[in-house]
Amino acid sequence: MNFNKITESILSSIITIVGDKNVLSSANSMENYSHDETEDLVYYPDVVVKPGTAAEVSQLMKLCNDNLIPITPRGAGTGLAGGALAVNGGMMISMERFNQILHIDEQNLQATVEPGVITEVFMAAVAEKGLLYPVDPASKGSCFIGGNVANCSGGPRVVKYGTIREYVLNLEVVLPTGEIIWTGANTLKYASGYNITQLMIGSEGTLGIVTKIVTKLIPRPTLDALMLASFSSNEDACAAVSAIFRAGVIPSSLEFMERKGIEWVIEHDGISFELKDGIEAFLLIEVDGTNPDVIFADCEKINEVLESYNCKDVLFADTATQKEEIWRIRRTMAVSVKSNSVYKEEDTVVPRAALPKLINGIKEIGSRYGFSSVCYGHAGDGNLHVNIIKAGMSDEDWNNKLKDGITEIFELTVSLGGTLSGEHGIGLVQKNFMPLKYTTTHFNIWKGIKAVFDPNGILNPGKIF
Amino acid sequence: MNFNKITESILSSIITIVGDKNVLSSANSMENYSHDETEDLVYYPDVVVKPGTAAEVSQLMKLCNDNLIPITPRGAGTGLAGGALAVNGGMMISMERFNQILHIDEQNLQATVEPGVITEVFMAAVAEKGLLYPVDPASKGSCFIGGNVANCSGGPRVVKYGTIREYVLNLEVVLPTGEIIWTGANTLKYASGYNITQLMIGSEGTLGIVTKIVTKLIPRPTLDALMLASFSSNEDACAAVSAIFRAGVIPSSLEFMERKGIEWVIEHDGISFELKDGIEAFLLIEVDGTNPDVIFADCEKINEVLESYNCKDVLFADTATQKEEIWRIRRTMAVSVKSNSVYKEEDTVVPRAALPKLINGIKEIGSRYGFSSVCYGHAGDGNLHVNIIKAGMSDEDWNNKLKDGITEIFELTVSLGGTLSGEHGIGLVQKNFMPLKYTTTHFNIWKGIKAVFDPNGILNPGKIF
Repeated sequence: MNFNKITESILSSIITIVGDKNVLSSANSMENYSHDETEDLVYYPDVVVKPGTAAEVSQLMKLCNDNLIPITPRGAGTGLAGGALAVNGGMMISMERFNQILHIDEQNLQATVEPGVITEVFMAAVAEKGLLYPVDPASKGSCFIGGNVANCSGGPRVVKYGTIREYVLNLEVVLPTGEIIWTGANTLKYASGYNITQLMIGSEGTLGIVTKIVTKLIPRPTLDALMLASFSSNEDACAAVSAIFRAGVIPSSLEFMERKGIEWVIEHDGISFELKDGIEAFLLIEVDGTNPDVIFADCEKINEVLESYNCKDVLFADTATQKEEIWRIRRTMAVSVKSNSVYKEEDTVVPRAALPKLINGIKEIGSRYGFSSVCYGHAGDGNLHVNIIKAGMSDEDWNNKLKDGITEIFELTVSLGGTLSGEHGIGLVQKNFMPLKYTTTHFNIWKGIKAVFDPNGILNPGKIF
Repeated sequence: MNFNKITESILSSIITIVGDKNVLSSANSMENYSHDETEDLVYYPDVVVKPGTAAEVSQLMKLCNDNLIPITPRGAGTGLAGGALAVNGGMMISMERFNQILHIDEQNLQATVEPGVITEVFMAAVAEKGLLYPVDPASKGSCFIGGNVANCSGGPRVVKYGTIREYVLNLEVVLPTGEIIWTGANTLKYASGYNITQLMIGSEGTLGIVTKIVTKLIPRPTLDALMLASFSSNEDACAAVSAIFRAGVIPSSLEFMERKGIEWVIEHDGISFELKDGIEAFLLIEVDGTNPDVIFADCEKINEVLESYNCKDVLFADTATQKEEIWRIRRTMAVSVKSNSVYKEEDTVVPRAALPKLINGIKEIGSRYGFSSVCYGHAGDGNLHVNIIKAGMSDEDWNNKLKDGITEIFELTVSLGGTLSGEHGIGLVQKNFMPLKYTTTHFNIWKGIKAVFDPNGILNPGKIF
């Protein structure tokens, strides 16, 4: 793609649209925008622009479309696949000023929210009304809800409450050609033409920029119980996962953690936790609801299943503080790994009963290639985050051979009925692995759809495919 | 669109592909395929073809694509928007031989099923394993699951269990150009490129023909309670709907029925039910779960809400037989209206708190245009089926003026935040109303997507737009 550079005249038009305090162009001021949470990748845009309205986004899009300037839409920069990196330079459109919760509609249990609202801020606001928005990625304290929509983000509660697809009802979107549309209707059901709302979810900012989000809300469960089950092997822990559902229980979270992940958190984040000898894996299991008897009965059923899968010990969290500490271990794991080692994170997902085969296979592949790994994730959804640690691997092997090992991991994932990403997206760093699962026909369809929305290919080029 | 006719030579190729016992071409043998459940519309295809494998569908698609023969994919023909009518003649591809449940995977709580399986047959098969597939349109006893996917069909349990979008994980699809693809992966989460699975759902057979469906299943609730609440006005009944959710309860069904609908069922279907004077509207409310105390507590909360909305009477169904009788009233209503009057059915959907305004508005519009209406539907989703009855309207008004009345109903629906169809689809009969909600930009996107999948426009032409 032959893009143009931002000239003085274009820069002056940008300033006219958003005002000069909303335009950054020095390297210093753009440092925060040059990376996301993906490995150690750094790409500077030529300019960062912070529009405040859909009309401003529209004018910026038209300007870039007319002048063939690439645009990188940007949420909070917490992505793990490089989707928000300005790999072609050009204009980065930061959505940080779209930070208002516009309306919490208690009559309809819906909310209208701007994409730059931090997910946890939104969750807290609806919780105050006794309501639940359950889509909470580990980065909920810093990520934007707009980024969640763009990446089809998940989190631990998908297992009970469904994916973000079930909660996003309607989107206001600015297209690369400048038109502003609502993709659908503010309704719980929708059978009126190809579903543009659903197409936007997970499109990683390549089809349009979301400027308003209408979400479904549900009544808030008032009670929960949390248990941490320990196992002497990854395989036992993973095998117990699908058995819990077969016992008729749907936990509100069912997370897997390897021992090594917890060691890492203890070592690097000062979280205290007693790791017993011989324990290799953990399941963090949460059950929620409104009736203590049901929660108790669910916990008993889960306990029975755990016992039959050689669970060594079950810790019931007694207090809110203890629950929070256990959750903090799980939520900190990604950051802990990232901040303390050169690593790569892969986001595999398989049918949940295939988890034991997946994790055993990953370890076997690692042993052949000489890399170490820390695995954890949303086991209830079959979604395993694989953190590959450089450890003793030589720089040469890391740079040249590792990609073959990752290829083997994804080949295994695909052979088990899975796919490359469950919730992180494809972005920049996974796109070269896409042909492991998808054919020329898939790519032709994707590229065709892209061209319908973005004929000049200006919006987030170089991502997904 | 300039299509070609089926020549002797093409017919001979068709017979070579599927065998002559799977080809119908006499008017007599095609009578069942000339209509669906939409009003009294009749369109004959030139030939009905019954392939048995995806490879055969692929060969038929290529043949038609090369020769510009229009194809109408056909499920069970229970559609209410004319989506399965062969309006351009050509080839109808009936999916009736794709009638196998291929695998119920109890380890992963998934099933792989062919599109020509009757929805209720599939539900019963998974129920035998203690599992639930909750997407049950009123026509579940005769409709095909493939048609449900094509139309994004709903049913009463969407309100608790989510739409069909949450249950369809992966699809095998034959494209109009003959390629056979799996749209995604057999996983509960998916963030790997534009979601073709979701795009296929609700595309009404215009983008491809589904040949296999992988669905999510969930543990089956073991208990339920059913109550029938009666009100002296539509408005009171509709206003109670959103209040039930605000009280923290999510019923497994929350259906609205007008008195007139029940009168119709009593008169025409021999179902006995005592209709008290002064009662104008009913809510049918089902709660399910696994714990009797929770169900009892939910019923109590619902009862409190009902009382505060002037509910006149609540009937609790005591036995399975009584539950079935009440459900039969609701499920029979559409067929009862259809079989006894010239009518048109509109499938409005709004945010649920807007239901009182919607139903009052519909009655007011009817009184100005001189038509009568019977309204019922999935009130918990804001989804109201409006059956417009010809009654005393003159043929001239019915043929010429009614469309203005329907336009007003949809204008009202849209002004309340809703859309034209929640679960029936747009098909043939609603497409002219689409510009009431959607702009040229939407149509351009839809047409662009259509052209990506179906460059020659052979697949179900004349539907949606």
